[in-house]
Amino acid sequence: MSATKNRRITLAARPSGLPKPSDWKADSVDTRAPDAGEVLVKVLYLSVDPAMRRWISEAPPAYIPPIALGEPMRAGGIGVVVESNDPAFAPGEHVFGWLDVQEYATLAAATLEKVDATSAPLTTRLNVLGAPGMTAYFGLLEVGRPKAGETVVVSGAAGAVGMTAGQIAKIYGCRVVGIAGGSEKCRFIREDLGFDAAIDYKAGTLDQDLRSHCPEGIDVYFDNVGGATLDACLARLALHARVVICGAISQYNATTAASGPKNYLALLSRRASMQGMLVFDYRDRFAEAAPFLAAWIAEGKLKSVEHIVEGGVAAFPEALLLLFNGGNVGKLLLRIAEA
Amino acid sequence: MSATKNRRITLAARPSGLPKPSDWKADSVDTRAPDAGEVLVKVLYLSVDPAMRRWISEAPPAYIPPIALGEPMRAGGIGVVVESNDPAFAPGEHVFGWLDVQEYATLAAATLEKVDATSAPLTTRLNVLGAPGMTAYFGLLEVGRPKAGETVVVSGAAGAVGMTAGQIAKIYGCRVVGIAGGSEKCRFIREDLGFDAAIDYKAGTLDQDLRSHCPEGIDVYFDNVGGATLDACLARLALHARVVICGAISQYNATTAASGPKNYLALLSRRASMQGMLVFDYRDRFAEAAPFLAAWIAEGKLKSVEHIVEGGVAAFPEALLLLFNGGNVGKLLLRIAEA
Repeated sequence: MSATKNRRITLAARPSGLPKPSDWKADSVDTRAPDAGEVLVKVLYLSVDPAMRRWISEAPPAYIPPIALGEPMRAGGIGVVVESNDPAFAPGEHVFGWLDVQEYATLAAATLEKVDATSAPLTTRLNVLGAPGMTAYFGLLEVGRPKAGETVVVSGAAGAVGMTAGQIAKIYGCRVVGIAGGSEKCRFIREDLGFDAAIDYKAGTLDQDLRSHCPEGIDVYFDNVGGATLDACLARLALHARVVICGAISQYNATTAASGPKNYLALLSRRASMQGMLVFDYRDRFAEAAPFLAAWIAEGKLKSVEHIVEGGVAAFPEALLLLFNGGNVGKLLLRIAEA
Repeated sequence: MSATKNRRITLAARPSGLPKPSDWKADSVDTRAPDAGEVLVKVLYLSVDPAMRRWISEAPPAYIPPIALGEPMRAGGIGVVVESNDPAFAPGEHVFGWLDVQEYATLAAATLEKVDATSAPLTTRLNVLGAPGMTAYFGLLEVGRPKAGETVVVSGAAGAVGMTAGQIAKIYGCRVVGIAGGSEKCRFIREDLGFDAAIDYKAGTLDQDLRSHCPEGIDVYFDNVGGATLDACLARLALHARVVICGAISQYNATTAASGPKNYLALLSRRASMQGMLVFDYRDRFAEAAPFLAAWIAEGKLKSVEHIVEGGVAAFPEALLLLFNGGNVGKLLLRIAEA
């Protein structure tokens, strides 16, 4: 029996600035039959994440191994088992894991988690019930520690993590102000997601808008973007404010040194804190958060919004750029095959 | 009876960069007899602090009222009551308060605290048993939260707060690395104060020195200086590190926007926190710290080192500059009159 072909996108060069088409290489290899303890998975959906830009940089963050040139691009995703050489998995079962940008993945069964495809859509499993939802939940509640009545500002508010963090802050009784790019995204988070206010950072009046929407200052700032937005929010912190550093999408393609928050001394004068968070650290507690997130979805208090790109692995390079040109609303996913 | 003359230093202009002689004006006014509830104090010692530079800037920090042009320069200090119109104070008693840069202060008794001049030198009351000691104690222990065996790095380590924070970290069983300017300061904190290692930032090898002295990374960074030193330490943070933002002396005379810590994303990859602290917030807890600090002094574990400038109020403008040109070791005090 001849092996099925596996089309992939591999890393051809380390990008300078925004990744170019020539930084990627499409190839096709034979799928590899699973050895003992391994599983062959057909990839259905891949998660396309801002952090991917950091993973392929010259100096990737210390929390994750670098991706070597010639390797398939790393990506988390959901697939279906087509062949199993491990007693824990059977063909037809849905799994989550590091499937990478390819059509088929052969990998250790121990690295996979089973996914219940019946109680929620697979796409929700990659969004509010997956890493973005957990990031928002633990980042907001454990690091941001909002109290009812406080003012919470979220940047990247039309992105997967930002919109979930903002909606959870509303559930906790906070006044929630979202920062997003463009009037349509602002309308969406205000009207469809129930944010109290939305600021279009592209309007060029961020400082004034923060002043008018946060007259008592910002108690919790959930930062997904860094750069000038972080600085503007630091300048509006309330006493004892908490700044959650969840990401810095404005900086990931910088070709010069990332710009530091020049207003960081607001931490001193406002006795505020700024703390980084990575969702991996909360893995042991996902089971604690999942029932809350699922219940809020069921009650209509929390919307799981996905932006699904079609076209299979070949569409990955273009899909990734959507994150950096503001082209997505909600969780960006790449569909590799029909579920 | 003719009033005693009171020589003062007032703020003549808002400095650009380092304060110049013309930014100050010396004058002499009559002392004012105390009204009901007031006390006339003869000033003995004034505390000369890096934060003074921020208080006289165009945009002073929000935690303290600005100093208007023509007003005497604000300064904390210790004096002796010469005339009292309040039952709580009697002539001859020593007091601490905002005495300002002048020889005599007439001010509300309610703003003063009595100082015990018998159990410790007055100068120690302005150092380890005063605001610098309390800053180091609460900043290190409450915000830095060091554990025995951890690596604590302190910048401005030959200054009043830095040397006290470092010595307390030693008492708590940490490995302590101090950063200071020049080989003599480095020798002093290592040999006389017992730091495990000292780094001379003027040697130009800060990154390498941090690598060799902190092979496991920095668990607590107590920052008094900001700028390039903060960035270098951020790049060496250990997982879950705590950065205490106590000051940023390198930035206080900047004529352009303060430089932000471009390595702040280390907070994300190391899941670290950076938190500002102001000693005023711990005022209600000074009585909790004082017995520990006094006991450590008595046991010889904690040295209170003062750098006393003579010359009275006229010497204030030059004394202030010592803080910014590295001219002091220990707490900088200005002697106004003999105790």
